[in-house]
Amino acid sequence: MELKSIISRLEWRMATKTFDPNKKLSESDLGLLLEALRLTASSYGLQPWKFVVVNDPEIREKLKAASYGQAQITDASSLIVICAKTSLNNSDVDEYLNKTASVRGLQMENLEGFKGMLYGFIAGKDVESLKTWSVKQTYIALGNLLTTCALAEIDSCPMEGFDQNAYNQILGLEKLGLTAAVVCPVGYRSEDAPESKEKKVRFSREELVIEI
Amino acid sequence: MELKSIISRLEWRMATKTFDPNKKLSESDLGLLLEALRLTASSYGLQPWKFVVVNDPEIREKLKAASYGQAQITDASSLIVICAKTSLNNSDVDEYLNKTASVRGLQMENLEGFKGMLYGFIAGKDVESLKTWSVKQTYIALGNLLTTCALAEIDSCPMEGFDQNAYNQILGLEKLGLTAAVVCPVGYRSEDAPESKEKKVRFSREELVIEI
Repeated sequence: MELKSIISRLEWRMATKTFDPNKKLSESDLGLLLEALRLTASSYGLQPWKFVVVNDPEIREKLKAASYGQAQITDASSLIVICAKTSLNNSDVDEYLNKTASVRGLQMENLEGFKGMLYGFIAGKDVESLKTWSVKQTYIALGNLLTTCALAEIDSCPMEGFDQNAYNQILGLEKLGLTAAVVCPVGYRSEDAPESKEKKVRFSREELVIEI
Repeated sequence: MELKSIISRLEWRMATKTFDPNKKLSESDLGLLLEALRLTASSYGLQPWKFVVVNDPEIREKLKAASYGQAQITDASSLIVICAKTSLNNSDVDEYLNKTASVRGLQMENLEGFKGMLYGFIAGKDVESLKTWSVKQTYIALGNLLTTCALAEIDSCPMEGFDQNAYNQILGLEKLGLTAAVVCPVGYRSEDAPESKEKKVRFSREELVIEI
């Protein structure tokens, strides 16, 4: 695809606050968005995340209350909660290496060096740093999701404005070793969404780019 | 664009370690990649980042040494260092609100409520948390860059494996209130890049997606 066309899709994108509650993503499109998320890059390929899709309307009402009442939580066609693993450990590494061996037709012995590196990476960080690391990775998934949506003319609204503890409780995330990292309703903007009339505010290239 | 075509571009994408040093991005394409980065979403729209493009071959050699000798630092057509603001403060908010007022033709008085919220956001976090917050935002930019590159058939290699302090010193980032958050060489894969023969390893949809 031409970069110029990608840019024009990114210019069209906005944090959609006013979704049309009657316009629904098809099952197939939602599946493809999740497939795009699944393909997201992560450091070492560790994928320290899960993607929670909340369909249940009652749970979405509770999450809306835990999101300062923001209407996009219930109005958007689908609600994706991107979750990070809170205590990444050697079993996560083992699970990943088993997957690697199986996908690439390797023996675990071939992966000993990589395993040592990953175990060392985990041993070198305390629990809080590992959690922060996992959360950072989820923002790559968010960036990928926002751009994928923009290209497919699907609206999205990245959100940090929610009560993380309440989300974790409502969705039962803690016992899964997860925390809600960032939230992204997806769907279609309302035709008269006031925010679609607002110009995008970005610093200029001169203000943001340094060439050395 | 059809979601299916986006997925096939994301499947093509890989962390390219073997760049063809002779294949260069055009000036225009590099400019458009930077434009895509510039358009990245951030929380509150604050854009707590700068994008450093390193052209100087001697500096790239130094950065390669500070990246465990990884060849993609010097072999890729361009090297983008995504930097986060280390001490976001009220002047950053003011700068952003001035930009908002100017782009949207508003008076600063119209933005008083928003300003109060942003000042409150900053006052509510210590320096370390603000830095972590800014770094997380840069990962949205990274996710956007990786997907944009994939769509335009440009190769990229997201990298956390570098000595942050050395980068900050070599690029003089500290005095600009910045830290190197994540690094991304971009260009074109070598025709015989061994990693292009390796199957992508991802957990399955069943393993990654929870529907509630």
